[in-house]
Amino acid sequence: MESGPHAAEITDKRLLRGARTRATVLRQAVDIASLDGLDGLSFGRLAADTGLSKAGIQTLFRTKEALQLAAVDHARDRFVEAVVEPARSAPHGVARLRALLDHWMVYAETPLFPGGCFRVATMAECDSKPGPVRDALFRDQRAWVGLLARELRSAASAGEIAELDADLVAFQIDAVLCATNTALRLGDPEAAARAHRIVEGFLRPL
Amino acid sequence: MESGPHAAEITDKRLLRGARTRATVLRQAVDIASLDGLDGLSFGRLAADTGLSKAGIQTLFRTKEALQLAAVDHARDRFVEAVVEPARSAPHGVARLRALLDHWMVYAETPLFPGGCFRVATMAECDSKPGPVRDALFRDQRAWVGLLARELRSAASAGEIAELDADLVAFQIDAVLCATNTALRLGDPEAAARAHRIVEGFLRPL
Repeated sequence: MESGPHAAEITDKRLLRGARTRATVLRQAVDIASLDGLDGLSFGRLAADTGLSKAGIQTLFRTKEALQLAAVDHARDRFVEAVVEPARSAPHGVARLRALLDHWMVYAETPLFPGGCFRVATMAECDSKPGPVRDALFRDQRAWVGLLARELRSAASAGEIAELDADLVAFQIDAVLCATNTALRLGDPEAAARAHRIVEGFLRPL
Repeated sequence: MESGPHAAEITDKRLLRGARTRATVLRQAVDIASLDGLDGLSFGRLAADTGLSKAGIQTLFRTKEALQLAAVDHARDRFVEAVVEPARSAPHGVARLRALLDHWMVYAETPLFPGGCFRVATMAECDSKPGPVRDALFRDQRAWVGLLARELRSAASAGEIAELDADLVAFQIDAVLCATNTALRLGDPEAAARAHRIVEGFLRPL
């Protein structure tokens, strides 16, 4: 008689299955939240949409808040993969800022999530509700605006653009991108060109 | 025996009662929507919150969509009363733009609605859902950005500021105000001062 699989192998397979289920649920959760908000997430709806068992999903995430937080993290990871990572090949400063803008535009225009930019879609819903979900969205916003500000500083110190208040301009660029996301959802044919013109206005050579 | 009230008087009283009920419901509806979105509106919740009968509310508004549209109109009227009307005493151009900004800041900081700016609170929820509610929110955004653009044009043609692309700058100012509303909800102590600095940057004298 052949020996059965080792206990370690069984555990590995279970972990793998858990990770796959988790990824399937989170992909769906982020798509739902981009359209209907984080409050639109429920174990029942995710079970119906994915064909997985509600009990299984509930075992993985335990609470609605934990599921919402996992969805925010998953959306952030996919944003970083789609926008931040591919821009890393461009040198710091103006070239990196242009690459970030170009990848952001594809992210919002395609769009990566059916409801468009995940943060815009969920922040308005959560901004008056203190708690870990709002904190997580705010953390991601700060990281993104901070990244833009660092590249603006890099551009200014390399003499590519005039000295500027990098935090102030980064806030403005983020505000314009959020408004552009809304304009794209509304079908505004000028949205992308307008965002490019505004950002290029901040990147004028010295 | 005294004669009863005339039929016309009865009708007047009924209309008055209907108008009062409508106003009570809409005040509550706009407050709810500013926090939980327009999808958070239901006849049952409004009845529970106002103490009015659900059937009475339903008779007045008939459908959820009609209620949502009435809430958007009511919020727009209160925005005009709070921000646009009081600025009318300032002369056109830079003075009017500063007055609009000051009243907008009170509107968002106080705030007039518990969830802050009504349009920001509801647009992210509706922007991927074509239909009359989205159209109404978009109409109000266009009216507001159009007002800012007209005053920018007036400021430029009076020589108060340099010639500029008024539509582009109006879009940017609106984007910054929307982002400022979010920052205010998140308790950012710099939010108001930053918005003032950015808008003043657009209003620099020639």
